[in-house]
Amino acid sequence: MTASPPDIAAHPIGAVRLQFVELPRPLALDCGRVLPHVRVAYETYGTLSPACDNVILVCHALSGDAHAAGYTETPSTARTRDGFRAEERDAERGRGLGWWDGMIGPGKAFDTDRFYIVSSNLLGGCAGTTGPSSPNPATGRPYGSDFPVITVADMVRAQRALLEELGITRLLAVAGGSLGGMQALEWAVQHADFVDTVIPIASTHALHPQGIAWNAIARAAITADPDWQGGDYHDTGRAPTAGMGVARMVGHITYLSATSVRDKFGRRLQGAEDIGYDLTTPEFEVESYLRHQADTFVKRFDANTYLYTSRALTYFDLARQYGEGQLARAVRDVSARTLLIAFSSDWLYPHEGFEELTAALRGAGKDVEFHVIDAPYGHDCFLLEEARQTPLIQAFLDR
Amino acid sequence: MTASPPDIAAHPIGAVRLQFVELPRPLALDCGRVLPHVRVAYETYGTLSPACDNVILVCHALSGDAHAAGYTETPSTARTRDGFRAEERDAERGRGLGWWDGMIGPGKAFDTDRFYIVSSNLLGGCAGTTGPSSPNPATGRPYGSDFPVITVADMVRAQRALLEELGITRLLAVAGGSLGGMQALEWAVQHADFVDTVIPIASTHALHPQGIAWNAIARAAITADPDWQGGDYHDTGRAPTAGMGVARMVGHITYLSATSVRDKFGRRLQGAEDIGYDLTTPEFEVESYLRHQADTFVKRFDANTYLYTSRALTYFDLARQYGEGQLARAVRDVSARTLLIAFSSDWLYPHEGFEELTAALRGAGKDVEFHVIDAPYGHDCFLLEEARQTPLIQAFLDR
Repeated sequence: MTASPPDIAAHPIGAVRLQFVELPRPLALDCGRVLPHVRVAYETYGTLSPACDNVILVCHALSGDAHAAGYTETPSTARTRDGFRAEERDAERGRGLGWWDGMIGPGKAFDTDRFYIVSSNLLGGCAGTTGPSSPNPATGRPYGSDFPVITVADMVRAQRALLEELGITRLLAVAGGSLGGMQALEWAVQHADFVDTVIPIASTHALHPQGIAWNAIARAAITADPDWQGGDYHDTGRAPTAGMGVARMVGHITYLSATSVRDKFGRRLQGAEDIGYDLTTPEFEVESYLRHQADTFVKRFDANTYLYTSRALTYFDLARQYGEGQLARAVRDVSARTLLIAFSSDWLYPHEGFEELTAALRGAGKDVEFHVIDAPYGHDCFLLEEARQTPLIQAFLDR
Repeated sequence: MTASPPDIAAHPIGAVRLQFVELPRPLALDCGRVLPHVRVAYETYGTLSPACDNVILVCHALSGDAHAAGYTETPSTARTRDGFRAEERDAERGRGLGWWDGMIGPGKAFDTDRFYIVSSNLLGGCAGTTGPSSPNPATGRPYGSDFPVITVADMVRAQRALLEELGITRLLAVAGGSLGGMQALEWAVQHADFVDTVIPIASTHALHPQGIAWNAIARAAITADPDWQGGDYHDTGRAPTAGMGVARMVGHITYLSATSVRDKFGRRLQGAEDIGYDLTTPEFEVESYLRHQADTFVKRFDANTYLYTSRALTYFDLARQYGEGQLARAVRDVSARTLLIAFSSDWLYPHEGFEELTAALRGAGKDVEFHVIDAPYGHDCFLLEEARQTPLIQAFLDR
């Protein structure tokens, strides 16, 4: 697939540079351990108001990074659009475009003419923020298996420390899809002093058991790879790319609806008239597509980051963490207005999760708005259905 | 889990012995190759009528074997119940019970007081019938990667040769679930001279694209395991058990509905009050369950058989094979009466496939009956919902 070079000058956001902050204090984690030094990678879009009162934090999903909009100046590591048709869209738009570029910019859902958007790479990440591939100050070598097991709450703690370091003490909104939506909910529940509104999309207050299973399978694929080496592969010259490829295929197919897979690929064969009687060659187009997704993913993503992040999102459970098992109790201190958006065909984060959450918030007298968008692309809708998300988000932010 | 020893004497079928036939002629395959020597393992239940006119063939699914009913005399290799709650049911019923024991026996759906039931291990299998772990006559060593890529049609050819060797020239019915249902359809389309009725259950005329993807992922997990060794692991002392475990987890979770996973496991932790901040230990009950399923499966099943069988079931496509792309054309020579049973919660073999097939058969003026049973257990319903399948099958066979 050939793509003409992007016309960066014509893009309303244009070229974006990844920035870094060294947190001034150690970060205490849910597991009881402390990370002595944390660096956070982030990007910003738009202009911070003099009163610092126009800030929106966007939070990325499992395989994302800080590069949410515009063209990155380091395209090879920043192509993190997780979505169905990502390549086609990259081809259309050029390389190095942010994973939520359709949602962030002048006149878009998160309007950079009005808002200052901050997007940071998650704690535990592999795209600038301290994670398992970062140097362990105790040894000078990559953390590997010695990196502490982190939670969504820990990720949000790092985000808050970043914002405070940037002089920001209040967020107009926190928004994100999937794991990003969990972060938004964590902000609402634990940082009511800091956040006016939250916009969790295609997400949940607690992943349903089948989703726990998919994540366990993806992690098992990585840890079963002998090149994982118990997590301490970073400076061995080998990495669990085969297991990561399988994990990515599992993840990828759960992001798509059965209907969208059928509509896109059918049972068509890849470049052949008939079956080839071959065990290992991808013959069907959908097989070839998955293999390609796996091959490109393993080049840009760290296996340990996948493991840690997957663990964090399966642990996330507002009722367990903050409500002694009761969701209604967990949300009692929420003060932010909440906009929840789910998609009808998303079976990885089915809308029933947000229905439960809406009932809990309403029961506690909170201001919550909930929409299910009827769209066919599965979980990836949060990356693709810009046209239908945008008016909901704009109206909510204008309220 | 402790189980009291089974009361084999009290079981209406009792102990069953696996039998073998050496096919008298080489078997020509779809791929153009010929298997010079084929052995078929089979069991029988009930009594063959003097006129040989009461024979029903039952066909097993991907991970099954010939042991469909009664207690096997070789329990360690014959525990192939693929189903949800299989262990609980084994514990209830004792060890070594056939995978369709609830459906085969006196007064059951396939009534051994009236019918003579034949159940054979598939061509390519690992439980008695010639497959990739069998000795290659050309070398005296296991076939491994030199085993030819087989199709459902090849499996059925081997079944027909077995039956003819047993002196059977006509089948009252062919029945099976999942891949077993594909075999039943293959019988109807290609062996109209041999079969009076077919009963495909939880199956399809062509696996839908998401199902192709799941199978490709499971196969990728096996072939990514370095111990697979290109398929030639059989006499190396190593086998791709890690990759097989992941493949089994993928398969297993696709056999269950999201609802049944939620109802059975919820988000409960396994033997712990709180999360353990651990990357690799199964902490949630569903994680532990999947790990256990993987561990037991790899002990009893051959990885190459998994690969070959999975390839065959993704290839299966009546319209492509026999209708030049048209399903209606593919079924034009069917003479058997057809009973199709699907399950509302089966998302691996969704009922839409049988709806298309029903329309094609009706359009061609064939005698077809189609039922969707409303049941919550997903694809595994065909192994579990005996109570609701039985009257449909009995009435169909009595007609």
